[in-house]
Amino acid sequence: MTRLNSKKTVSDANDAALFSRMKKIQIYDTTLRDGTQGEGITLSLADMLRIATRLDKLGVDFIEGGWPASNETDKAFFREIRNHGLSHARISAFGSTCSPHGTAESDPQLQALIDSKPDAICIFGKTWDLHVHEALRTTEEHNLSMIRDSLAVLRPHVEVLHFDAEHFFDGFKSNPEYALDCLRAAHEGGAEVLVLCDTNGGTLPSEIRNIIQRVRTAIPEATLGIHTHNDSDTAVAGAIEAVLAGAQLVQGTINGYGERCGNANLCSIIPNLELKHNGAYTCLPEGHMNQLAEVSRFVSDICNLHPFDRQPYVGTSAFAHKGGVHISAVRRNPRTYEHIEPRAVGNAQRILLSRLSGRSSILHMAEKYNYPLDKNDKAVKTLLDEIKAREDKGYEYASAEASFELLFFRALGWTKEYFERITFSVSDSVRGRDSSPYAEATVMIRVGDRIEHTAATGKGQVNALDVALRKALTPCYPSLAEMRLEDYKVRVLPGIKDDDTDGTASVVRVLIESADNTERWTTVGVHYDLVLASWQALIDSVVYKLFKDDPDKVLPLRTAE
Amino acid sequence: MTRLNSKKTVSDANDAALFSRMKKIQIYDTTLRDGTQGEGITLSLADMLRIATRLDKLGVDFIEGGWPASNETDKAFFREIRNHGLSHARISAFGSTCSPHGTAESDPQLQALIDSKPDAICIFGKTWDLHVHEALRTTEEHNLSMIRDSLAVLRPHVEVLHFDAEHFFDGFKSNPEYALDCLRAAHEGGAEVLVLCDTNGGTLPSEIRNIIQRVRTAIPEATLGIHTHNDSDTAVAGAIEAVLAGAQLVQGTINGYGERCGNANLCSIIPNLELKHNGAYTCLPEGHMNQLAEVSRFVSDICNLHPFDRQPYVGTSAFAHKGGVHISAVRRNPRTYEHIEPRAVGNAQRILLSRLSGRSSILHMAEKYNYPLDKNDKAVKTLLDEIKAREDKGYEYASAEASFELLFFRALGWTKEYFERITFSVSDSVRGRDSSPYAEATVMIRVGDRIEHTAATGKGQVNALDVALRKALTPCYPSLAEMRLEDYKVRVLPGIKDDDTDGTASVVRVLIESADNTERWTTVGVHYDLVLASWQALIDSVVYKLFKDDPDKVLPLRTAE
Repeated sequence: MTRLNSKKTVSDANDAALFSRMKKIQIYDTTLRDGTQGEGITLSLADMLRIATRLDKLGVDFIEGGWPASNETDKAFFREIRNHGLSHARISAFGSTCSPHGTAESDPQLQALIDSKPDAICIFGKTWDLHVHEALRTTEEHNLSMIRDSLAVLRPHVEVLHFDAEHFFDGFKSNPEYALDCLRAAHEGGAEVLVLCDTNGGTLPSEIRNIIQRVRTAIPEATLGIHTHNDSDTAVAGAIEAVLAGAQLVQGTINGYGERCGNANLCSIIPNLELKHNGAYTCLPEGHMNQLAEVSRFVSDICNLHPFDRQPYVGTSAFAHKGGVHISAVRRNPRTYEHIEPRAVGNAQRILLSRLSGRSSILHMAEKYNYPLDKNDKAVKTLLDEIKAREDKGYEYASAEASFELLFFRALGWTKEYFERITFSVSDSVRGRDSSPYAEATVMIRVGDRIEHTAATGKGQVNALDVALRKALTPCYPSLAEMRLEDYKVRVLPGIKDDDTDGTASVVRVLIESADNTERWTTVGVHYDLVLASWQALIDSVVYKLFKDDPDKVLPLRTAE
Repeated sequence: MTRLNSKKTVSDANDAALFSRMKKIQIYDTTLRDGTQGEGITLSLADMLRIATRLDKLGVDFIEGGWPASNETDKAFFREIRNHGLSHARISAFGSTCSPHGTAESDPQLQALIDSKPDAICIFGKTWDLHVHEALRTTEEHNLSMIRDSLAVLRPHVEVLHFDAEHFFDGFKSNPEYALDCLRAAHEGGAEVLVLCDTNGGTLPSEIRNIIQRVRTAIPEATLGIHTHNDSDTAVAGAIEAVLAGAQLVQGTINGYGERCGNANLCSIIPNLELKHNGAYTCLPEGHMNQLAEVSRFVSDICNLHPFDRQPYVGTSAFAHKGGVHISAVRRNPRTYEHIEPRAVGNAQRILLSRLSGRSSILHMAEKYNYPLDKNDKAVKTLLDEIKAREDKGYEYASAEASFELLFFRALGWTKEYFERITFSVSDSVRGRDSSPYAEATVMIRVGDRIEHTAATGKGQVNALDVALRKALTPCYPSLAEMRLEDYKVRVLPGIKDDDTDGTASVVRVLIESADNTERWTTVGVHYDLVLASWQALIDSVVYKLFKDDPDKVLPLRTAE
């Protein structure tokens, strides 16, 4: 495969000789800049540095670090990132054309871009006559000079220079000649790539394709890029159509984060380009695309946003099968219901446990447990009924696979109880002006003839309850000392009410993820009382650990019926 | 505007005379059938009936109610829906071609379709040779008869008959002649619309367009429909391209729910077709499109799924502005950063409060409160710093607007305290085999010289705390009796740790929505201790109620600085 030297300039990248077999599409990530305009996203300097380092490892060509003139955190990023030894990506600084009230040479914002000493600079300028009049409040002619002069001032100070043609498609629809004049001014100013931006996200893919074709005819000497937003739910398709029409650089963000409905999602664009055009395009260094699912998760964790389960390619549901018909077919040949091999993007197939998935998913799990189960065994029906009844109450087993395994073997007749709960209690109080809460739990359990009664404090009641429970059990079951709680999730289920109660008494679902030295597992609890829901999930977690380590485990044998 | 009679057949709908000015695109909703294949979606019969009734009011043409042969709930739906007096939509039953091992005339699954007495029937059949061999395990010739015969058996029993050409695009790419033969067989069998399905979601929009053009050339007599999935993040664009290429019916789901990455999202397709083609297409009865945001929310509530904030057109973030530059422009002219008028789909503009939004959002809120605030007032900077510090701890004010209003006036010097907290405590315990929890709270507060000490039980600790708090305050502030808690949301914030603690001690954010007879408001609390986070949000909620009703409220006057 033809591979570009990562630090070559875009002009080199266009060298026809390199593209004899495969066209390199430059990937310009703006998660740290445009992505942080999204609702609920706020990144610290440390977060920004971690994300940039991870994106460099993924192999994107450009990482837009922020707008140095706009705030101190962005400015610090450009100072600090130099100490992080990036090996592949260029760091790009974002800004705008100079103020309409001064000259480009004396513009403090352009100077801040130069002072941030990035590998690349990208400035945006107006190309929609409406914005020139309404937002800039200047003449169309003066805006052309602002574009040309601002780029010319930056040109000597930076290796790669890009121009973001803001609102280009709206501008072209309103006044095509003026929009093209803006591009010509940017080209004259020295921008290597003219990035056509659908800033409001309102342009459909077919329009993007047509307009880019017209731009290429009008300005054949320009190298074009594309920047789309998802307001019409077509940002990814718009970017792909732009590449098909000749764009050579794609701007986007991880997970499509960004203002309003978000930017074009690089996690979808990259595999769409690499996997769906018979090898015509390459975006990342060879063998790197299987990092996408991990990068997606990493960025959502750092941004502290829940991953979007249905996210194409990288979401946890992207290759999850639930319908019975689909499951039996996909077990025979994955291609029947999967458009790509999940591992190409670092994802994996999942068979979902639900009443809709029917017998095949139960049999699939039995196989996974190496447990011989006949498809006509009555227990299969019992288990399906039990799952249905529990789903109606708010349980979900798709992610709580350890709770499901216990349910499975109990339905088949496994009855061992490692301990009996007698009592537990929690309390929490805040006294006086000091606002530190005091959380405490007590647990009384019986193991055989032995009664253990323990108490513990903790950071919050569930933490106290976990400590007290394991204090009570560890004398009899020392292996529990290896176990730890990894994650704790709470979800209020507004659609399910225990009975007629007010807002605070909705049913809650708790998921607890635990781990020991060899394995991770998730358990579930559901109740209107959060403490009791947490207790259920804690108990399942401990019982699962005891069950899987149990040397005397006797699983019920099924006989043909 | 030309309007079709809702109960006309599709053949009537194609009557050229009706389309002199505007082409009617039939909207076929499959939320209840294909939508429920999505992870985490389980609908009861009552849920299904509520959704169908709401979709009828919205004005979709077809509502696919389920697969009567597959389960009892779906079967009951077809029986019950007749008593719900739908006024517009046709109810469609879903099924498959007959079994390869029998005849269409004697097929119980086809009989179940007839017995369910729907207005319309849609059956799917194989059109991909791979599936004929691997899934059906029959010959290509026999599959053609199965398609033709199954449709012919159904034809006399139903007003409208559709054929879902499963995996059509993969089939066409693998063996175009055979895929076309399947369509011809369906047309001969009597299907009025041949719906081309991209079942695996792997086909990009440009391919969909090309293939549909070839199908139209090969079988000009057929009326075509489109059914796409979002595995390539292009389902909406694929459906739009299909319509541009001549498809006259679109299948999809509300919010794009469905297996894996979901189906094509009708909440995006409908406005894309109606608003972005110069009036060339109509989908819903005139004036109905502004129900979309409400329908989206209604369906996510019934499905008990969190709404996707970034969802195009109807999401809460779809017209939310955060960047300072955008906010000042959009305050002058919404068109500068909004692709459509939000109210066209029943949505609204929002200005987000965050440190990135800068001074303009603070000034926007001051205007909203009718509070004269100079843009150079030092309090603006103080408030921005305070928001930043609190965002770093996990607070978010975009949705907690009542907590923000209190923060705003406190930053400006408002200091009134309606009461002082002395102590509060909660406890919860479960004793013996009975698993009912006993939750109790106590509260001690001071109002002036008066000390109130109350206790209450509740359904869970937060409910108990809310009751005890209002019991303590209502004697002094009787208006609190009008107030009620509407919703309670908990979110664990994995990225923010109070300090080095294990999984159960992550920071949690609580949002509480409250209401009285005239207003609804949301407040926020953040702490590693869930009870304390809940307490903060409860207190803000009560103080906001007292603040807004306070007849003696004295807001600090700002003087020019």
